[in-house]
Amino acid sequence: MSLYTTQELKIYNSLSKQKEVFKPITEGFVGMYVCGPTVYSNVHLGNLRTFMSFDVIYRYLKFLEYKVRYVRNITDAGHLESDDVTEDRFAKKARLEQVEPMEVVQKYTVDFHNVLNTYNLLPPNIEPTATGHIVEQIQMIEDILKSGNAYEVNGSIYFDVVKYNEKHHYGILSGRNIDEAIHNTRELDGQSDKRNPQDFALWKKAEPQHLMKWNSPWGEGFPGWHLECSTMSTKYLGEQFDIHGGGMDLKFPHHECEIAQSVACHGTAPVHYWMHANMLTLNGQKMSKSTGNYILPAEIYEGGNSVLSKAFSPSVVRFFMLQAHYRSILDFSSDALEAAEKGYTRLMEGMKLLGSLKTSATSQVDMTSWKKSCFDAMNDDFNSPILIAQLFEGVKYINQINDGTLQITAADLEILKATLEGFVKEVLGIESTDNNQDSGKLNGVIEMLIMMRNQARVDKNWALSDEIRDKLLAIGIQLKDSKEGTTYLIQN
Amino acid sequence: MSLYTTQELKIYNSLSKQKEVFKPITEGFVGMYVCGPTVYSNVHLGNLRTFMSFDVIYRYLKFLEYKVRYVRNITDAGHLESDDVTEDRFAKKARLEQVEPMEVVQKYTVDFHNVLNTYNLLPPNIEPTATGHIVEQIQMIEDILKSGNAYEVNGSIYFDVVKYNEKHHYGILSGRNIDEAIHNTRELDGQSDKRNPQDFALWKKAEPQHLMKWNSPWGEGFPGWHLECSTMSTKYLGEQFDIHGGGMDLKFPHHECEIAQSVACHGTAPVHYWMHANMLTLNGQKMSKSTGNYILPAEIYEGGNSVLSKAFSPSVVRFFMLQAHYRSILDFSSDALEAAEKGYTRLMEGMKLLGSLKTSATSQVDMTSWKKSCFDAMNDDFNSPILIAQLFEGVKYINQINDGTLQITAADLEILKATLEGFVKEVLGIESTDNNQDSGKLNGVIEMLIMMRNQARVDKNWALSDEIRDKLLAIGIQLKDSKEGTTYLIQN
Repeated sequence: MSLYTTQELKIYNSLSKQKEVFKPITEGFVGMYVCGPTVYSNVHLGNLRTFMSFDVIYRYLKFLEYKVRYVRNITDAGHLESDDVTEDRFAKKARLEQVEPMEVVQKYTVDFHNVLNTYNLLPPNIEPTATGHIVEQIQMIEDILKSGNAYEVNGSIYFDVVKYNEKHHYGILSGRNIDEAIHNTRELDGQSDKRNPQDFALWKKAEPQHLMKWNSPWGEGFPGWHLECSTMSTKYLGEQFDIHGGGMDLKFPHHECEIAQSVACHGTAPVHYWMHANMLTLNGQKMSKSTGNYILPAEIYEGGNSVLSKAFSPSVVRFFMLQAHYRSILDFSSDALEAAEKGYTRLMEGMKLLGSLKTSATSQVDMTSWKKSCFDAMNDDFNSPILIAQLFEGVKYINQINDGTLQITAADLEILKATLEGFVKEVLGIESTDNNQDSGKLNGVIEMLIMMRNQARVDKNWALSDEIRDKLLAIGIQLKDSKEGTTYLIQN
Repeated sequence: MSLYTTQELKIYNSLSKQKEVFKPITEGFVGMYVCGPTVYSNVHLGNLRTFMSFDVIYRYLKFLEYKVRYVRNITDAGHLESDDVTEDRFAKKARLEQVEPMEVVQKYTVDFHNVLNTYNLLPPNIEPTATGHIVEQIQMIEDILKSGNAYEVNGSIYFDVVKYNEKHHYGILSGRNIDEAIHNTRELDGQSDKRNPQDFALWKKAEPQHLMKWNSPWGEGFPGWHLECSTMSTKYLGEQFDIHGGGMDLKFPHHECEIAQSVACHGTAPVHYWMHANMLTLNGQKMSKSTGNYILPAEIYEGGNSVLSKAFSPSVVRFFMLQAHYRSILDFSSDALEAAEKGYTRLMEGMKLLGSLKTSATSQVDMTSWKKSCFDAMNDDFNSPILIAQLFEGVKYINQINDGTLQITAADLEILKATLEGFVKEVLGIESTDNNQDSGKLNGVIEMLIMMRNQARVDKNWALSDEIRDKLLAIGIQLKDSKEGTTYLIQN
């Protein structure tokens, strides 16, 4: 019996605006699609948080032993700034830099993967690109045209929102009232090919100077931005699938358009559970390049930036971000990161003791109930902050057992160990920062110095004992003496 | 003035079978295309060597201050095992694993990137996929059909090699005689749609059960394998470009077919310099999964494999591979790697001394001439083993200067330093293995122990002095005493 059959998972569905019990379309399997990055600049911190939120959701579904197919796209073409601009963002950037658009795409795709690897996000199972699905997008446009919900003007194809809204509900996800919008809109100026301002492009005719363009039944052009996600999600997950995620800012118009496109093409709403991750602010303000209130994910661990007091390791940043629920706004600041670093260290220190705890014939604590509370937290719409609070309960038990003030059986210790390690490493994806080859040698050398210091103390050579402690501290290694012996903390 | 204008670079051209002076089509710019991996299994060691060879070629061209556009593709579709098999390799693997073909593609693309990152290969400037260029491939087939060099049979399109060979030379790269081949070939059995066995598929009709297929003017199907490289190389580099590389095994039929496709489509041979990297053997034998004479790139540094005596760091493997010329066969073995490890260590140790060398009023060595010999090595068809021999000359100078047996001016020391660091790090891409945060702390703690040991020796406490040396050695840190003081070597 898999874990998912014994636990009831609730997910907040943006469509119904309430928490619902999760029931996948096919028992045991989950299809999940998340809108990925537009690769014409470095991935920003807000995006990183969104992708990390869905990384933990993906990890927890796998932890529950679902077979998950997680698809996250790369937008490398067709991301229009406006339907009335015939040049997409890549071509513009590329021309400024005097490079081929796909060189820009490659540069920032590599950056994106590097940053996500550094922050320990798992790669999705499929990572499709917009340029890799031109044929499929053309096919979908043809199907939408056949359904009568789109029209061609001068080599461009537009989705007919007004026509669609006669039979369906455009606004079902975002709650926007299309009738009101139409009523309040002034007439279009002569510049636009669109019948109504609410209509959106499925295909845009390319001007001769346009760099990214493809042959189509309507001449050379490029797909509209909303189309790729509809095409790729249904290609790899089916016309109906379980979970679609993305940042809050994508709810309208992007996800609203995705629903309309799928309903027009396949006759069914595509997604059972819509999930949206909230924003990130920096020092209480919106991040903005122009005001300087801005930091790139790589600048956090490299240090030397003007926004934060010091460098923070990717593990600490990850721990910090997961201390907030994915649907809450998160403020990023030095003070908050420093506090998170203390918590992270306490968690890692506690877990280091797991291997050396003494067991007893009886337990003075109910481990099964504690373990259940960890699952309960995540089953309540992936509530990672509540989970982390429960993990600190576990650390409290460890320290009490270590002090000899709490007794635990070997069986219960095994539950404590497996639960903590499972949730910390597999679900939250938080790793100890000392996991490379040199770290092994570093630990060896530190342990050697602790033994030498112990010998110095036996010899009552207090000067040497203090010298070892002080010099290690200067290097960034803190010794901590207790009646159980000496442990150490390697500072970041 | 850029370096490329002051140096004459010679490249062995597989087409002319001789070394030729390199003259790029556009002064100062180089377009280079290399056939990338087929991502339906882990990248194997032979492929790694090929990609590493072209990585060094790319690095050296950049070092000469060329503006290089390096394109390396990902084959994620249409790699037929035989033209008469209607199922390509991905679909077959995918069905066995019960996964979507693009899941297989993603798994092995991620592996490929991880391995190449670990071995410090630079990403190419563009990394196009076959599935990302279906529209362009269909366009190229239409152009070849128009030229009269291809024909349609039952929804598949074949390149007409016999027809092409009437006006052009099929076999120009590989030296194969097509007339002879045709004369010696038995009649085709009724199974094949092809007019002649030498013909190759440009587009294959997909059977209904085929998983990877696209709409085309000839119905649903998928592109032939040879086509993608012709389409993508000319799309990003132009109808004629400078360098095309790949493994020796791709010369025929793959590269021969690429030439024929481009000549038929554009009327010109596509490539000025064809470059082919040689094979790799393991313990003197061809690598083979079935015989167990096989090792994956990741198994080398992870250790615990049955083929090698111990684990070797990626830097050592890289150094080892570059000690052979890219056009020579290279044999991979424990003994050879252990020898390379010694050489690598000697090089790194020498370079560590660069910062602390004393300078004199005169030089007893001609640094400009030595520097030129480094360039000469690489200018002679990228002869990395000769380059490495020259770099060891540099290390010899360092050791002599350090010993006080050789004098050098500050200006000459600057040449020595810049040349060594440029060629080792930028051109060969070889990094010191101790370049992370914990390494800094490790070095600090080791230096602290060396000072304690020095004090012990002053105190004539030989027991403690020896204890420190022996315990460090047990951890894998070797102390080396000389009249200049104590240095250390961190073993891998």
